[in-house]
Amino acid sequence: MVSQPPPNHEHLDDQMIKMEVNLDDVSGEWLGYVMDLLFESGANDVFYTPIYMKKNRPGVLLQLLCSREKLAKMEEILFKETTTLGVRYYPLTVHRLERVFKKVTTEWGTVTVKEGMLAGQVVQRAPEFEECKHIARLYNVPLKKVYEQVWKALE
Amino acid sequence: MVSQPPPNHEHLDDQMIKMEVNLDDVSGEWLGYVMDLLFESGANDVFYTPIYMKKNRPGVLLQLLCSREKLAKMEEILFKETTTLGVRYYPLTVHRLERVFKKVTTEWGTVTVKEGMLAGQVVQRAPEFEECKHIARLYNVPLKKVYEQVWKALE
Amino acid sequence: MVSQPPPNHEHLDDQMIKMEVNLDDVSGEWLGYVMDLLFESGANDVFYTPIYMKKNRPGVLLQLLCSREKLAKMEEILFKETTTLGVRYYPLTVHRLERVFKKVTTEWGTVTVKEGMLAGQVVQRAPEFEECKHIARLYNVPLKKVYEQVWKALE
Amino acid sequence: MVSQPPPNHEHLDDQMIKMEVNLDDVSGEWLGYVMDLLFESGANDVFYTPIYMKKNRPGVLLQLLCSREKLAKMEEILFKETTTLGVRYYPLTVHRLERVFKKVTTEWGTVTVKEGMLAGQVVQRAPEFEECKHIARLYNVPLKKVYEQVWKALE
Amino acid sequence: MVSQPPPNHEHLDDQMIKMEVNLDDVSGEWLGYVMDLLFESGANDVFYTPIYMKKNRPGVLLQLLCSREKLAKMEEILFKETTTLGVRYYPLTVHRLERVFKKVTTEWGTVTVKEGMLAGQVVQRAPEFEECKHIARLYNVPLKKVYEQVWKALE
Amino acid sequence: MVSQPPPNHEHLDDQMIKMEVNLDDVSGEWLGYVMDLLFESGANDVFYTPIYMKKNRPGVLLQLLCSREKLAKMEEILFKETTTLGVRYYPLTVHRLERVFKKVTTEWGTVTVKEGMLAGQVVQRAPEFEECKHIARLYNVPLKKVYEQVWKALE
Repeated sequence: MVSQPPPNHEHLDDQMIKMEVNLDDVSGEWLGYVMDLLFESGANDVFYTPIYMKKNRPGVLLQLLCSREKLAKMEEILFKETTTLGVRYYPLTVHRLERVFKKVTTEWGTVTVKEGMLAGQVVQRAPEFEECKHIARLYNVPLKKVYEQVWKALE
Repeated sequence: MVSQPPPNHEHLDDQMIKMEVNLDDVSGEWLGYVMDLLFESGANDVFYTPIYMKKNRPGVLLQLLCSREKLAKMEEILFKETTTLGVRYYPLTVHRLERVFKKVTTEWGTVTVKEGMLAGQVVQRAPEFEECKHIARLYNVPLKKVYEQVWKALE
Repeated sequence: MVSQPPPNHEHLDDQMIKMEVNLDDVSGEWLGYVMDLLFESGANDVFYTPIYMKKNRPGVLLQLLCSREKLAKMEEILFKETTTLGVRYYPLTVHRLERVFKKVTTEWGTVTVKEGMLAGQVVQRAPEFEECKHIARLYNVPLKKVYEQVWKALE
Repeated sequence: MVSQPPPNHEHLDDQMIKMEVNLDDVSGEWLGYVMDLLFESGANDVFYTPIYMKKNRPGVLLQLLCSREKLAKMEEILFKETTTLGVRYYPLTVHRLERVFKKVTTEWGTVTVKEGMLAGQVVQRAPEFEECKHIARLYNVPLKKVYEQVWKALE
Repeated sequence: MVSQPPPNHEHLDDQMIKMEVNLDDVSGEWLGYVMDLLFESGANDVFYTPIYMKKNRPGVLLQLLCSREKLAKMEEILFKETTTLGVRYYPLTVHRLERVFKKVTTEWGTVTVKEGMLAGQVVQRAPEFEECKHIARLYNVPLKKVYEQVWKALE
Repeated sequence: MVSQPPPNHEHLDDQMIKMEVNLDDVSGEWLGYVMDLLFESGANDVFYTPIYMKKNRPGVLLQLLCSREKLAKMEEILFKETTTLGVRYYPLTVHRLERVFKKVTTEWGTVTVKEGMLAGQVVQRAPEFEECKHIARLYNVPLKKVYEQVWKALE
């Protein structure tokens, strides 16, 4: 049930769905849990936005991105785990970059750097967050210092 | 002109429209009023999101959901009551649960509980907020206590 | 129990308290009601801010302003009507302008304009919102048009 | 490369695109700059919304509106100047009012007022912000006073 | 280094500090990690608010609550792990309820319920979230159903 | 009238004031301008937060930091340029790092890097944003590339 990551080459994906739910009768405590469930079941992304709803209610807009084939599964979770009586959705297109993974060396070991390529040209370079965080924890150094070393090691 | 609620059986509604307006030259005071007008004229939902606009302006994104047949009426209100020169919109689909209304008994009287059913199975149960609030006001008890009694009375 | 408005002359008020509560286990539905209760019991102002709390929870920061003598009453409402186990507060000073009320005439009747004076000089002029809204409702005109007439009638 | 403003007559524009990017690994400092670049290259509007992303991350949703012909240019900027590996988009329709420009006279000179017309009827009137601000700066008067004079001068 | 929870009896704590930092040059990715570090080192609470900063920058306001004795430790983390050059703070008072822990029985086992008491009267009752979540995970039931059973089991 | 920057050595400043104003009857357009005026007249920082105010109003909380000696000037601007009838404030303490300025060389020229020192130890290093932006503009390169070169040039 866990989502398959999209392919690594640059492509247009026109089989994606945005789903949205407005929530004014569920607590933040539950919503943190719902986000985990949706990711585990294959959502490509899930995020919350604060919204102003009727009767002075501070509500939350849940948005999620998934492929068409995940639509029914996502709806099931939303209906069972939140308090909504309706889910809305619409199709959209995603343009994804080619992704290439490199290794760089720091004094604490290697770190993966993910590169994004647009028409064959590198336009993005991002150290893998979880690896940097692991090093920061293990060696008790500020996360900033880990990133600094990674940036320096990139040529 | 007041909106007709959607039917009570589970269904897909593909005649819905999301409208959006960005506002940076209208006050919050007016926007509270505009929300009331839109609901009274048949919007299914209206909500505001804080947005960051150009030139350091804290703006507001107005979003509303309505059926296609309400499109012109909603636009008229938006143009006459806000300061926008353009309204944007796109279609979306809504999956709505079957809704069933039950009564439960508390020491202060009966309260309606709205159930939502997905494929014939109860997945939602929500006490009607306005009825609980009415009891809380009338008997001078915390709203929490009213809800607690309703939850206990549900089997 | 309803709050006394502050005096109309320009003054420094150093008997004010800001109270704050972080909420991640209460719904927006209830919070709309809590705001009403706090105003009715004498809060000078009550407002909500969206906050990011631990464990991915979209929470709400409730802030209220009241005089010291209202502290116990406000706490009682917060503890009984929200889900918090703690309320925090600190003192602050408020500098309030002198307020003068004028009447101006529109085609739909008179409207009160509240003026604010700093060191005897008019620096603020605001039509009373509720009166303008009442006219807009009664005569079925856009609220904007009511305000425009009031602005024109001011000299 | 600067965007052409839409035509002045009332019309439906069905050649518009909404683009969206979720950002959790770029600073606010850079995003202020990205907004400028996008406007300069022809975006009709660009705005940010605070969002709650996975792993307790306060992120930003970038949304922009542009015509279809600007799609590739906007993507290029987003990929080169932000940290995203994917951009999503969907079509929408914009209903724009007819726009008419008038001049009104204040004690500090003339100010343009933009009128918006719906089916030939004036529904919007807005002084040009930059002109009012220029006067406020030049004559060292509060911006409020400039607007007040413009409102009075309108008949 | 982990924070000691405050005592269980109702009390006023006047040894608390609110710290604040405005951040516009750090990513959301890092901020999720900083929140974890601050909690682990003894912060009583940490939360983020979206703010609008100069030059169109969507920034983040970090707020944290801690006891005076934790002040230096919190500052050290903030300076080492974020990008700020200054930290501001001010004292505040916290009124905390007496807390009592009860057990209730559900079909999936017992759950702790935390009660909050104001002047000896129960005003709060909250099931322990982590225990409910554990059951929901283990027995593959919606979290809502776990809470419903807990509410029913309370007398 | 322009604010003096605080001294460069590490210090505690206990002469600072936080001012706050709630605004529900002023537009975002004006608020962008007010922020500029406050910075020009010596505010150390100014920022906006979206807040939920009574009667369903999406409002804005203006917060500013200034030294005590700027209090009257800041109030004058707030009263003259916004619509508020009251300004609230309270004292706070700021712990500021020692700041040291270095130069690093890139292929497009030198860039200043600001270092922050806590107890004599470098804990912050930030390239000057405006200089990097200037290079990005002048040489038509992505801002990301400028920062990457600066990070590499730091030892």
